[in-house]
Amino acid sequence: MKYELGCHLKYKIIQPSTILFNINVAKTPYQQVLHEDLQLTPSSDFEEYQLPSQENRLIRVNAEVGELEVHYRATTKVSYYYADPATVVELPPAALPIEVIPYLYPSRYCQSDRLMRLATSEFGHLQPGYSRVSAICNWIYEKVTYLSGSSTSETSAYDTAIQRQGVCRDFAHLGIAFCRALNIPARIVAGYAYGLKPADFHACFEAYLGSEESSQTGRWYLFDPTRLVPQNGYIRIATGRDAADVAFATIFGNVEMQQMRLFVDFLLDSETTSKELPVPTTDAIALP
Amino acid sequence: MKYELGCHLKYKIIQPSTILFNINVAKTPYQQVLHEDLQLTPSSDFEEYQLPSQENRLIRVNAEVGELEVHYRATTKVSYYYADPATVVELPPAALPIEVIPYLYPSRYCQSDRLMRLATSEFGHLQPGYSRVSAICNWIYEKVTYLSGSSTSETSAYDTAIQRQGVCRDFAHLGIAFCRALNIPARIVAGYAYGLKPADFHACFEAYLGSEESSQTGRWYLFDPTRLVPQNGYIRIATGRDAADVAFATIFGNVEMQQMRLFVDFLLDSETTSKELPVPTTDAIALP
Amino acid sequence: MKYELGCHLKYKIIQPSTILFNINVAKTPYQQVLHEDLQLTPSSDFEEYQLPSQENRLIRVNAEVGELEVHYRATTKVSYYYADPATVVELPPAALPIEVIPYLYPSRYCQSDRLMRLATSEFGHLQPGYSRVSAICNWIYEKVTYLSGSSTSETSAYDTAIQRQGVCRDFAHLGIAFCRALNIPARIVAGYAYGLKPADFHACFEAYLGSEESSQTGRWYLFDPTRLVPQNGYIRIATGRDAADVAFATIFGNVEMQQMRLFVDFLLDSETTSKELPVPTTDAIALP
Amino acid sequence: MKYELGCHLKYKIIQPSTILFNINVAKTPYQQVLHEDLQLTPSSDFEEYQLPSQENRLIRVNAEVGELEVHYRATTKVSYYYADPATVVELPPAALPIEVIPYLYPSRYCQSDRLMRLATSEFGHLQPGYSRVSAICNWIYEKVTYLSGSSTSETSAYDTAIQRQGVCRDFAHLGIAFCRALNIPARIVAGYAYGLKPADFHACFEAYLGSEESSQTGRWYLFDPTRLVPQNGYIRIATGRDAADVAFATIFGNVEMQQMRLFVDFLLDSETTSKELPVPTTDAIALP
Repeated sequence: MKYELGCHLKYKIIQPSTILFNINVAKTPYQQVLHEDLQLTPSSDFEEYQLPSQENRLIRVNAEVGELEVHYRATTKVSYYYADPATVVELPPAALPIEVIPYLYPSRYCQSDRLMRLATSEFGHLQPGYSRVSAICNWIYEKVTYLSGSSTSETSAYDTAIQRQGVCRDFAHLGIAFCRALNIPARIVAGYAYGLKPADFHACFEAYLGSEESSQTGRWYLFDPTRLVPQNGYIRIATGRDAADVAFATIFGNVEMQQMRLFVDFLLDSETTSKELPVPTTDAIALP
Repeated sequence: MKYELGCHLKYKIIQPSTILFNINVAKTPYQQVLHEDLQLTPSSDFEEYQLPSQENRLIRVNAEVGELEVHYRATTKVSYYYADPATVVELPPAALPIEVIPYLYPSRYCQSDRLMRLATSEFGHLQPGYSRVSAICNWIYEKVTYLSGSSTSETSAYDTAIQRQGVCRDFAHLGIAFCRALNIPARIVAGYAYGLKPADFHACFEAYLGSEESSQTGRWYLFDPTRLVPQNGYIRIATGRDAADVAFATIFGNVEMQQMRLFVDFLLDSETTSKELPVPTTDAIALP
Repeated sequence: MKYELGCHLKYKIIQPSTILFNINVAKTPYQQVLHEDLQLTPSSDFEEYQLPSQENRLIRVNAEVGELEVHYRATTKVSYYYADPATVVELPPAALPIEVIPYLYPSRYCQSDRLMRLATSEFGHLQPGYSRVSAICNWIYEKVTYLSGSSTSETSAYDTAIQRQGVCRDFAHLGIAFCRALNIPARIVAGYAYGLKPADFHACFEAYLGSEESSQTGRWYLFDPTRLVPQNGYIRIATGRDAADVAFATIFGNVEMQQMRLFVDFLLDSETTSKELPVPTTDAIALP
Repeated sequence: MKYELGCHLKYKIIQPSTILFNINVAKTPYQQVLHEDLQLTPSSDFEEYQLPSQENRLIRVNAEVGELEVHYRATTKVSYYYADPATVVELPPAALPIEVIPYLYPSRYCQSDRLMRLATSEFGHLQPGYSRVSAICNWIYEKVTYLSGSSTSETSAYDTAIQRQGVCRDFAHLGIAFCRALNIPARIVAGYAYGLKPADFHACFEAYLGSEESSQTGRWYLFDPTRLVPQNGYIRIATGRDAADVAFATIFGNVEMQQMRLFVDFLLDSETTSKELPVPTTDAIALP
């Protein structure tokens, strides 16, 4: 599936500041970047980094006083793995790859330790597997109201569980916290999302699950309790423990954001199969 | 119904201290004190007070260094009002007596303001009335585990809603918070409780509800989400906004509690009707 | 000292609602109401209540769909008690009148139980008395930034102690919580305030302290850690445990506030002494 | 400096469980493991892992019902880098290596985002550099009481800042949160500690700071606000964002710990210089 996407960000730099942007799409075997262009105005030097053992790409800019505009545009080809949800199982701690273990730990916005009893009481009796994580998403979708402006940068899963309102990152945080509380590794995914209205950066989450045929082969399966976007409409920017890891801009200094605009287009071509249309599906979707 | 009850408390006074005891049963038209005896050892002067517009009786003791023992014993005759739950209704704010209005406000342990959306989501769609408060109690009974030692003096309804464990005061606090969030005045009741094992001071709550026949006549109806005690087995010591108001001992100074023992006996006599046996009932029970 | 004051409130009533206004100035021996006028437009019936053992006056209005305007205007004569701060002492728990004891308990926004160690560490070593409460106010004034819009209706003293920003009610809550943590009874005071810019309802707090000459005679002394208003410029509407008790409007229903305007004028007359000018003073000021 | 150390852990395995131990000392260029022995009784298979880009060594054991004893013993040679504190500077965000950036983000127990204003108010005016982190440690040492059992596994820096009591991990969390709030990368260090009484696993923290001579060369400098141990008496097991990352045992299943014993001996040999004696120092100490 091919997507063309981009963002336009505009800042007022009040004092010389350093900004870390995390807006470039990830480059992975399953997400090829066919074309990419990043423009800073006024033209500024920047460095690009990749964190060890992560695909997140960080752009560090030292900005002078005045205006700063960022234009980013990319064309990317994304592959997904589709599975029958009935064949997707939870992995016992003994079978988890060691590098996914940290995604079981509580984090700033996903206090799984404090949500243990709630998670057990609501989901502990359910059949383990993809369907249990789906049940978590349904619970969130049904009980939490999606309401723009109803949460702040301090709102955590603990609050959302009880205050019952939030935005996409709050939905993701609660899903992650519930999964971890049940010993299912889970992480946040930040990205561009096809069909989101109004266009914005979007957060959902991935749970690390196995396959019935080969219990040793785990994959990160995508879940979005907001149900706002087709599951194969995500183009990944970054993954992390929670929103603290994947902010699209981390600002050191005195800076005001003045504008943000995004777009995501689906590029239909002759090779596109019906499975590859960005429409809601009942398949389980994962990284290949 | 007649009960004989009492407590024996033993303290080590490490420095001269002032203690406020709130262990005497309330004297009300519906709770006659037939006999009462309070002994302090060593013999100490004390003063008894009653807070304005409340029935709580406070005993203030200035204790010298050494041991302090408190023996309290009382015989009391308690009357309850029994109603058919189907006839008990919620009162609109326009019809509430002004003196019950403060029991709608959030308090230290019952942050009804922060639980508003949860309460609305879980109970907002239910038919108002006694049955809705019962539904709140059932929710608490089913979802919260009664576990001695699982909460502290800092635990509030906000925590209990999510941590799903607690003791009687936590159960009461959550019931109170949910009621207030739905505009039902609610208050804590601390007292002696017949049949509680092990014997201890017990907390439950009252909601202010009206009657179908006369919507202007409200009463405080008793609810206990722990279901540990028959509803007509409570002998009231104090009421308040939450546990902060009804501690059985408020200590100013350096004091260690060393022992606490309680007993509650039901006194069967020839006048006792079957309705007046302390056994679980499906009736709504209130102050007459 | 004579003040003329008033407020003009405008609401959009979206569905039939009940509103409790608490905007009338308190009538006490020390605050005479010389003239008072309350107009509702459209003209509506309302009831006035006074809570038992409190001076707060509540106006209950059942509002129909449409607009509701409230015009309130009063002329009041206020007397203060002035004392030399050096003669104002803290009272031991053994000497506190029983009706002030509840103002030692933690409340929704003043979790003195959770601030005990912080209060002891910062103020425990100071000489008890008026000067210690002054030290609390200085701490708050110096360490907390007054910033309109920096807190919400959920913000409590616990948060303000650490987030270090807030508005008048947050300043008052923190002062109250620190006092209670040190066994000094403290309560919130809501009122009109002379000289506040922009004009608004204002909150400060009172601590119950004694006098050197007669340790049995306690009084409620006024403190305002915001230092925005001269201490004898307060005209009291209500007192309570914290902001939960003294909201100027408690709304049951679907209502939007559209406008709020206040004014407070000082009426200088031939009897006014220099002490009675509303200017900052180093005297301790209390209810007579 | 050579240390011999070890631990003996004893568990009751109530149902088949998976345990991740993180008790082996890290192997780094500056911490050579001269000898090491890990015994499980009953003899069990285990796997050893190292997380990518971290030195933490994890031992995964699948334990059968019954008892499980772990005996670990190691001899290690540790090198430290000693610097004059006056030459140690803070690095601007523009100069930080990208892999230390995540140590600026808030984490489960170190909510630097919520402590920003407190940190700025207390330490914002201080001269940046080693001395500012020292000032943070002094603040914690002076204002927070070290009290065994005074915190739980849920206690975070936000709580410790206000409740003013805790154990070593709480001290470290608060130091980390303050540093991050000031844009100084900081991480937790868990390890064995020479001279700690009673012997126990110990937590302190490291801040990433630069050197005056070469502002591009950063190092992780060690800080311990508990002041319980000489700075060169730490033998590192693990580093991480906070305690969630470095638990010495992560248990999946039903397991009770029954015993824990540790020892740390300093091995004096002929090569030992006076600087290498484990005694308190005013030098800045870092990883070489």
